Amino acid sequence: MPDSQNDHIFMKLALDEAQRAYRESEVPVGAVLVHNGKVIAKAHNQMERKGDATAHAELLVIREGARHFNDWRLLGTTLYTTLEPCAMCAGAILLSRVERLVWGAPDLRHGANGSFIDLFKEDHPTHTVQITQGVLAEEASELMKAFFRQRRLVSK
Amino acid sequence: MPDSQNDHIFMKLALDEAQRAYRESEVPVGAVLVHNGKVIAKAHNQMERKGDATAHAELLVIREGARHFNDWRLLGTTLYTTLEPCAMCAGAILLSRVERLVWGAPDLRHGANGSFIDLFKEDHPTHTVQITQGVLAEEASELMKAFFRQRRLVSK
Repeated sequence: MPDSQNDHIFMKLALDEAQRAYRESEVPVGAVLVHNGKVIAKAHNQMERKGDATAHAELLVIREGARHFNDWRLLGTTLYTTLEPCAMCAGAILLSRVERLVWGAPDLRHGANGSFIDLFKEDHPTHTVQITQGVLAEEASELMKAFFRQRRLVSK
Repeated sequence: MPDSQNDHIFMKLALDEAQRAYRESEVPVGAVLVHNGKVIAKAHNQMERKGDATAHAELLVIREGARHFNDWRLLGTTLYTTLEPCAMCAGAILLSRVERLVWGAPDLRHGANGSFIDLFKEDHPTHTVQITQGVLAEEASELMKAFFRQRRLVSK
C-alpha cells in the first residue's frame, strides 16, 4: 500500500482516540505510534483526567512505545497525531528518535512545526524527522472547533 | 532570605540529584521543584534506567509536582535545574505554568532558553516564566564535563 493510504488508515485511528478525548471533556487530540505497519501504542490527551500537563497524546504514545521496545529509542517508528505537536511533544519526538511524524490540523497557538515556532526546521544536533502534514486535517480541526464551541456554551 | 541565597540552597539540592544521575551513569542533570520555600519534588535524569526519552529530571519533577497538588497547574512554583532545559522540558515548564525557572549551566547543543533556540523569548500565548540563569553554573558544568570525559574513556 502506498504511504498516503496507510497514513489515512492510521490517522483515522488517531482520530478515534481524539474522539475519546472529546467524550472525556479533554482537548480532543489523539495519537498512534506505528512500527512495521503495526500500531504499537495509542493514546488520547488526558491532561485533565490525569492532572498532568505532560499527558498529551504524543507524549503518552512515546512513553508506551518505549515500554514496548524496552528502549527509549523508537527507531523506525511513525507517530501519527491529529494536531501539530506543541514544543514539549516536538522535543520528545526528536529526543526519542521517532523516524517519521504525520500530523493533521495545524495548532496556530502552540504548534511547534511552523505555526508558533518550528523546532524541526532548526538544525537539530542529533536527529532529523521526516514529516507529513495535513492528513485528515479537516476532521481533526472540526473536532477541535466543536470542543471549544461547546466549552464556550457551557461556561456561559 | 534574599532570592539569590535561596537559589543557591535549592540549586545545591538539584546538584546533589545530578550527582546521583552521574553515579547511575546517566547524563548528570538534577532538578527540584519548590513551593512556598519547600521542596515538593526532586529528581535526576533517568532516561537510560527507565528506558524512556521523556525521563529528564525536569519532566519528572513536573509530574511529581502535579501529583503533589493533584492538579497539572504548578502555580507559584520555582523549578531549579542544573542544566538549561531542552525544548521538551521548556515546553512542559510553560504548559504546567511553573512560575519561575532557575537553571545552572547552558546546554549549547539542546538548550531551549537561548543556546539552541529560545522558547521563552517567543511571545508564548498562555504563560510567561520568570527566569534566572547561571546559578552554580560552574559546578553543573564540571559534572557534565567529567561525565562525558569518562564516557569517552570507557568507549575507547
